[in-house]
Amino acid sequence: MQRRAVLAGAVATPGFAAASGPPDLPEWSRTLGPGVIEEPYGTRSPHETAVRRYVPWLTPDRISSVSFTPLAEMQGIITPSGLHFERHHSGVPEIPPDDYRLMIHGLVDRPLIFTLEDLKRLPQVSRICFLECPANGGMEWRGAQMSGVQFTHGMLSGSEWTGVSLRTLLAQCGLRDGASWLLAEGGDAAHLARSVPLAKALDDAFIAYAQNGEAVRPQQGYPARLVLPGYEGNMWVKWIRRIEVGDRPWFTRWETRTYADLLPDGLSRQFTFVNEVNSVITTPCPEKPLRGRPGFVEINGLAWSGVGRITRVDISADGGDNWREAALQGPVLPMALTRFRIPWEWREGQTAFLQSRAMDESGRVQPSITALRSARGVDSIYHKNSIHTWLVERDGTVVNVQIND
Amino acid sequence: MQRRAVLAGAVATPGFAAASGPPDLPEWSRTLGPGVIEEPYGTRSPHETAVRRYVPWLTPDRISSVSFTPLAEMQGIITPSGLHFERHHSGVPEIPPDDYRLMIHGLVDRPLIFTLEDLKRLPQVSRICFLECPANGGMEWRGAQMSGVQFTHGMLSGSEWTGVSLRTLLAQCGLRDGASWLLAEGGDAAHLARSVPLAKALDDAFIAYAQNGEAVRPQQGYPARLVLPGYEGNMWVKWIRRIEVGDRPWFTRWETRTYADLLPDGLSRQFTFVNEVNSVITTPCPEKPLRGRPGFVEINGLAWSGVGRITRVDISADGGDNWREAALQGPVLPMALTRFRIPWEWREGQTAFLQSRAMDESGRVQPSITALRSARGVDSIYHKNSIHTWLVERDGTVVNVQIND
Repeated sequence: MQRRAVLAGAVATPGFAAASGPPDLPEWSRTLGPGVIEEPYGTRSPHETAVRRYVPWLTPDRISSVSFTPLAEMQGIITPSGLHFERHHSGVPEIPPDDYRLMIHGLVDRPLIFTLEDLKRLPQVSRICFLECPANGGMEWRGAQMSGVQFTHGMLSGSEWTGVSLRTLLAQCGLRDGASWLLAEGGDAAHLARSVPLAKALDDAFIAYAQNGEAVRPQQGYPARLVLPGYEGNMWVKWIRRIEVGDRPWFTRWETRTYADLLPDGLSRQFTFVNEVNSVITTPCPEKPLRGRPGFVEINGLAWSGVGRITRVDISADGGDNWREAALQGPVLPMALTRFRIPWEWREGQTAFLQSRAMDESGRVQPSITALRSARGVDSIYHKNSIHTWLVERDGTVVNVQIND
Repeated sequence: MQRRAVLAGAVATPGFAAASGPPDLPEWSRTLGPGVIEEPYGTRSPHETAVRRYVPWLTPDRISSVSFTPLAEMQGIITPSGLHFERHHSGVPEIPPDDYRLMIHGLVDRPLIFTLEDLKRLPQVSRICFLECPANGGMEWRGAQMSGVQFTHGMLSGSEWTGVSLRTLLAQCGLRDGASWLLAEGGDAAHLARSVPLAKALDDAFIAYAQNGEAVRPQQGYPARLVLPGYEGNMWVKWIRRIEVGDRPWFTRWETRTYADLLPDGLSRQFTFVNEVNSVITTPCPEKPLRGRPGFVEINGLAWSGVGRITRVDISADGGDNWREAALQGPVLPMALTRFRIPWEWREGQTAFLQSRAMDESGRVQPSITALRSARGVDSIYHKNSIHTWLVERDGTVVNVQIND
């Protein structure tokens, strides 16, 4: 891959039309359009409605199911709340905010019940971070199956969350000797519940009542959810109703039957909380092929790590034989989506195996699929963070593949 | 103001209910809710629809008018695209993206016409920055008039914008000797057009086709608008259709009749491009009074500067006699909204004059309204960035006032 001269402004412009005179004045430049607050809450252009969450064939019903963010159409590091992926275990509860309560009890001096107004009065924290289902990519341990980046990596979104830190709430209750774990329980009918180490709760966890500037969306936990930066999405309990403080984990069904990584020897890894360093190229991808578009391509994608900041992303066009470092778009925030880019040239008739390989500030690097399988087998459906490969075919079609490496 | 013990966790908790047992299980915890992609593009909770853009009595019609962001309800530094303030001069044009064209001509070697696909193929840039109408607060030069922060400061929003830099586009065209200004013209029927210094265009200006991760909203310029970080919003030409390169400014009606600051001597300041350092407290505010809520208050608000990063925000509760430094929520990005916070205690029966005073990395500090009037008179409606005052009345009502200082 070579940095194209186009970037220095010294290249011819075969791709663009020469202007010989002003273009015809279109109809929309001759007439008045609708005025302000035709929509007190604005919506998208009608030309953009094909960009949508989607659920493939994964689950037999849509109540306990997942929908995927259309990553191929997303730019930057913020996902619009309306396109944030979903994972529900008993559907989306309808909670009137005045009726919402959060109880904190267990190994505390003062068990308390907080209203939503109580939470909003307390000191506030905001943070931009990624949220990823630990099953993201989980269908592909045995081989490439899904047909686009929406399905290989779309259980991933980025938001700015705002709320009150668990440190503040637990200080109101007072922790008793021996307190070392929390149970966080959701108010949906599934009562999804997860054990959280107290150290994480006192570090950077918070109860979010706002997402991307406004109230959290119903499908993301309205009116309040747990935020655990860097931890697997299942633990970010939505519609959070109860926090119990204890001295050991609870081993709920949500951390034993599910969300535990099955290893080749038949045992499960318990408590793989952190989603480790990962990345994926979103342009090009199966949904954004290069057909009929030879020449300059800006390869573009997302990297993220539950451990901290992304420090480097390397790109290969030959399946990992040669690598070049991509540029990272600032701000590069810890436990947040990070956009990377690198210029490339694709020639019609040229095949390529495009890969991205991210590194985080702990020094962790994405493993190859071969290395990951050799360590973890193929029976898990969680925490697959291996280097991903897109095959660019001779005609510019882009296909999800796996290669031995 | 004193840092309350509540922040250290060593305070009694009169405001919160003691939990004597688990709360009753509400209906929403007993029943299955709707599943995934009931909404392929999600919407807000029905309980949140009162949070909306609004237009007060300012203009005789809504075609050439403005709507305001509900800042009192906004958290963090990202404004949801559906609540981004609006300012249109001939309504919102409906532009099919396949029919969109951007022409660049004038003092260039190769006049070119770009399709939207052309723009999207070129190297990309993303940036989180504020967008503010220079008339924000402009009704208040002679005295406090507007009844809430939505109207005193709500022509202000923050977004992550993504697009292609003007540097890249101009390099495609090749600049000729003498090129020093651009004219940026919109595709709406008003053909709103502004002169932009070439130095700014080559520094950090870009044509944005994405806002907060998805396509720019129609009311924000779909499918593409100009982004000029730190510059007044009127220059961020929406639905941008034409860029002409020249050797001097054009002195369009949009920079002579309007958007020029009328001074006491009857002359106008020409080309006040930058929105200078400013701030406002959004909690409490007229829409978020303290009535019935004595005790701990986290004062909270937004600061921004078109010159660069916010470095400091001071808060006064006594109309400017005493100041204390607020905490800034990271990330603190140049030319972006910056959230500040400081703990305070309000006692029932206590009046207070709450003020915020921001400083940016250039050392600029917000002036008092008295100092600003003395320099600029009271005839302008633009670039009012003086320290703002909220009066907290004895009963906790919050009122927009101005004080001699």
